[in-house]
Amino acid sequence: MDDFIIKYISSFIKLTPEEEDIIRNQNLIKTFPKDTTLLAEGEHARECYFVLKGCVRRYHNKNGEERTTEFYTENQSIIPVSYTTKSASEYFLSCVEDSVIALGTNERNDELIKQIPKLETMLVKMASLMQANNQVEMDNFKNLTPEERYLNLTETRPDLLNRVPLNYIATYLGITPESLSRIRKRISRNR
Amino acid sequence: MDDFIIKYISSFIKLTPEEEDIIRNQNLIKTFPKDTTLLAEGEHARECYFVLKGCVRRYHNKNGEERTTEFYTENQSIIPVSYTTKSASEYFLSCVEDSVIALGTNERNDELIKQIPKLETMLVKMASLMQANNQVEMDNFKNLTPEERYLNLTETRPDLLNRVPLNYIATYLGITPESLSRIRKRISRNR
Repeated sequence: MDDFIIKYISSFIKLTPEEEDIIRNQNLIKTFPKDTTLLAEGEHARECYFVLKGCVRRYHNKNGEERTTEFYTENQSIIPVSYTTKSASEYFLSCVEDSVIALGTNERNDELIKQIPKLETMLVKMASLMQANNQVEMDNFKNLTPEERYLNLTETRPDLLNRVPLNYIATYLGITPESLSRIRKRISRNR
Repeated sequence: MDDFIIKYISSFIKLTPEEEDIIRNQNLIKTFPKDTTLLAEGEHARECYFVLKGCVRRYHNKNGEERTTEFYTENQSIIPVSYTTKSASEYFLSCVEDSVIALGTNERNDELIKQIPKLETMLVKMASLMQANNQVEMDNFKNLTPEERYLNLTETRPDLLNRVPLNYIATYLGITPESLSRIRKRISRNR
């Protein structure tokens, strides 16, 4: 699993064998069983995450109802708002599947950057890419109809539909489970 | 205006007087009249922006209809998706008001970082903060009803309502101008 991290970092910057060893020796990786809550509403996040295997769901509790706002799967980073802004988290992060996750903390990241300064270059690139992806997601959500959002999901993240309960998918698409069910029926009729 | 940039950067990292001078000597700042298109759909963005004064609108053209997805005002950075991913832009960036904007390019940023390496630390912090803001915006948009979105806007960015035509605000909130008009009437009746 360490080699996934090395591979991911190497997609941004070139690491020497010594630097690869420094990263391998961090013991960053932990395994979490399904349904583990990584972060609860009201908590102050002290960790950020990189999903090596599995699926993590971000959700809000609105008047007792869970609203899913994001799914993170393999090779995706999770930087909780609360981690960046040092405020109480407005949402939960929970494992939808047994998950293998690399963990970062501010202290550990600072320490690593001291040893491998060019990691900062990687962090700029990574955060910029996340920011760009967020823009695309936001624009898609605003510009597409619910049916178009669903079709977009089947194209861009087809695996999610087999990994995640449909009621999570519904709130993620901003619709009710009943609407999602109608959309799915309509589409399968027309195919 | 240069001093706004210095002030903004200094909110992330400490600059020496010499470093401040290096930044001042960049001549980064340009003035654009209202309605200037900074980036058109299909173009490859070669610049990123920091709004010193004015307002820039991000919008998509969907079947001949303009859909506003973001407004950038004073002290906000704009890093176009196309700038990060080196792809053709899916959206337009246009000045809603006469605007004073600091411009960055990849080459210029690299050159500046060579002279002031700790600017990279600032870029990590800035991109992380933008990423956190995007998460909050996305979650709000998904979790709030159109009326709640409007009320949230009046609280978080009250200036926008006086600066920007209501039909831009409507698509930004994901509703029709007619719905926005109904919501505004309902709220003013209940106050």
